[in-house]
Amino acid sequence: MGNEKPIGVAVLGLGNVGSEVVRIIEDSAVDLAARIGAPLELRGVAVRRVADDRGVPAALLTDNVEELVSRDDVDIVVELMGPVEPARKAILSALEQGKSVVTANKALLAQSTGELAQAAERAHVDLYFEAAVAGAIPVIRPLTQSLAGDSVLRVAGIVNGTTNYILSEMASTGADYSSALADASALGYAEADPTADVEGYDAAAKAAILASIAFHTRVTADDVYREGITKVTPADFEAAKALGCTIKLLSICERITTADGQQRVSARVYPALVPLTHPLATVNGAFNAVVVEAEAAGRLMFYGQGAGGAPTASSVMGDVVMAARNRVQGGRGPRESKYAQLPIAPMGVIPTRYYVSMTVNDRPGVLASVADEFGKREVSIAEVRQEGITDEDGVPAGARIVVVTHRATDAALSETVSALADLDAVQSVNSVLRLEGTAE
Amino acid sequence: MGNEKPIGVAVLGLGNVGSEVVRIIEDSAVDLAARIGAPLELRGVAVRRVADDRGVPAALLTDNVEELVSRDDVDIVVELMGPVEPARKAILSALEQGKSVVTANKALLAQSTGELAQAAERAHVDLYFEAAVAGAIPVIRPLTQSLAGDSVLRVAGIVNGTTNYILSEMASTGADYSSALADASALGYAEADPTADVEGYDAAAKAAILASIAFHTRVTADDVYREGITKVTPADFEAAKALGCTIKLLSICERITTADGQQRVSARVYPALVPLTHPLATVNGAFNAVVVEAEAAGRLMFYGQGAGGAPTASSVMGDVVMAARNRVQGGRGPRESKYAQLPIAPMGVIPTRYYVSMTVNDRPGVLASVADEFGKREVSIAEVRQEGITDEDGVPAGARIVVVTHRATDAALSETVSALADLDAVQSVNSVLRLEGTAE
Repeated sequence: MGNEKPIGVAVLGLGNVGSEVVRIIEDSAVDLAARIGAPLELRGVAVRRVADDRGVPAALLTDNVEELVSRDDVDIVVELMGPVEPARKAILSALEQGKSVVTANKALLAQSTGELAQAAERAHVDLYFEAAVAGAIPVIRPLTQSLAGDSVLRVAGIVNGTTNYILSEMASTGADYSSALADASALGYAEADPTADVEGYDAAAKAAILASIAFHTRVTADDVYREGITKVTPADFEAAKALGCTIKLLSICERITTADGQQRVSARVYPALVPLTHPLATVNGAFNAVVVEAEAAGRLMFYGQGAGGAPTASSVMGDVVMAARNRVQGGRGPRESKYAQLPIAPMGVIPTRYYVSMTVNDRPGVLASVADEFGKREVSIAEVRQEGITDEDGVPAGARIVVVTHRATDAALSETVSALADLDAVQSVNSVLRLEGTAE
Repeated sequence: MGNEKPIGVAVLGLGNVGSEVVRIIEDSAVDLAARIGAPLELRGVAVRRVADDRGVPAALLTDNVEELVSRDDVDIVVELMGPVEPARKAILSALEQGKSVVTANKALLAQSTGELAQAAERAHVDLYFEAAVAGAIPVIRPLTQSLAGDSVLRVAGIVNGTTNYILSEMASTGADYSSALADASALGYAEADPTADVEGYDAAAKAAILASIAFHTRVTADDVYREGITKVTPADFEAAKALGCTIKLLSICERITTADGQQRVSARVYPALVPLTHPLATVNGAFNAVVVEAEAAGRLMFYGQGAGGAPTASSVMGDVVMAARNRVQGGRGPRESKYAQLPIAPMGVIPTRYYVSMTVNDRPGVLASVADEFGKREVSIAEVRQEGITDEDGVPAGARIVVVTHRATDAALSETVSALADLDAVQSVNSVLRLEGTAE
């Protein structure tokens, strides 16, 4: 150690996370140097508009990303700019110039993972992205390293804090979706345009990253089946409660063997009923959790803060220290492992369980004809509840039937639901949600 | 890649974990080779007595540890023999001969971590031990790598499955310690001689390892304050329940600033009251969990199976794959980081909260004199309960007083308890337990 050459860091972006990263690099300089074996030095921070009220010495600020990335004394580039472009261009440029890169850009990773990994491979440098999934929670490193000798079967996580806050609110207060979203916005948990969160795009990008790593297969966001939470109703939460469940937006990555004997990867995001006894059921508010099931390890759970400046900066800095150590020692961390390249399973072949809620005419034979539509498609029914309902004046207005099925292919279930909607006796199919985290 | 030279592995010990490690090396050969970049080849397995009914080809078995370790075609030695000796000798010999070592031997690590780390350092090889703490749960790697850019404040874990099984039984069935221990033995959760588990030695070894890593300081098992669970009674569980708590054996590692302004490391193991709302309260049976609190990351929790052949083998194999990759790539994983070398804080200066249960004479002024003993030592009382008790014939037999204190130094609390025992009005001090996981 002693007089090791410093490791130069460039930070791109000075939002919540970037500011915390800069703070840690400066405040923890002595500790970081001891852990790395060389001092970590901040070379510059790229911002959209240089101003002197950013809490960073003006001399360090620049609006010229390319120039900062290209500096000879920059060894590690930390990309925290956000959108796919210009982040992609900046990262590729950094990698091509032999800089190690740390990024939290899940949208970019879920789209261009192959391109970025290959650029890192060619340049023999590290590309780390622990912060891209589940904020402060170590998930990428446990999957790529700790479980490197095991065989991952399934990863199921709550990886979007905004939707988890909204669903937790709906569960605990009985609020409807719109007012829970309004609360989330007021508290800063939802962005002005919440689409990426509530429609599941963010969760899908993270599912793609998790599936890629867990199954050594390149999975992009386009490969992920996706449903958002905008259609979840208070009635769904009531029905869930009656079934001993709550509702969570899950990102699920699974290795399955399809009917043809082929191993495939399934990656999917949807709101699902989860039994209250399942570890993910108790993850509330803006917290994240990821459950990993592996052949030898069994079930593991990782829990913590999934977003926010400081927690995300913790993950980023872990990656920075590892990349810096590797540069000091002349080595490199584990590279992308995509040897398996399993095909992606289409949603239709995935075995899931369904919860279906419908309003029917209350007359003899209706339940039988409903049950018949399930039976014809070999969808086995696990549980049925029927209760009479009345209109606002207390006049009988038919019945509500809730059906919970055993596991069947998503295609068979979805055909059954279409057929139910076409039955004369069925006034409306009110909700269709999947049920996860149960035995069969 | 292509025709990379194979990586040779020697396994020392063929118990539950060793057998699973051998099975994974053989059954997952293709996957492991793809992940490592070279085939992993089992060179031999050291056993105490060679026999042909061990599920391993007899040609691979040997009772000569030293000869196996010294083979030129062995690159990685996996030590799963158990006791401190001869494991220490075998590991030192392997390291000195330039082999990377993977071990799950917590007792050895908690005693000889410095000696082993220095030997690995001299030989420029990896010494990995993820499986030594909390079985399948990745804890060592997240602490050394994912949190390498953060500042760990506290690690608190349930890291001994035997005692957690016993305490969970006592909590749920009201059983006393002896019968819960008998159940644990019958189910194979406790060993014939359960001392290492029930007296907290195993948890203390793991606390030493966790504290060493979390605080970049060499901590041995002797530095860990230790109390076992043998004195915990059903009455304690009743009192805990009344306080909204349960009782868990905790391994706690903390960085504290003592009165003299010096940063110190505290490592301690004892049964403690934990609020039912704390994430560790719901960790039951043979499961393990570790909660890490870091400055930027906030609170993280890692949960999973803490023991058993397959789960522990998963951790061991993660280390084997990482060590093998490093050999293929000509690098090395992160080395021991002990730059901080903080002094160990004696238990007396540690601020804790106490729960004290005592039987007193039921007459005026007793509560005042009890309270006075706390007040004299500046121990602030948070909660008091007093109730009359009767003997077997229903005759009044005094009162039970339960006191819960605010945080005070352990020395002050322990002096207070001694003074209480000396009071004429106090018939007996029945229980003294610490309270953890609360705000103040």
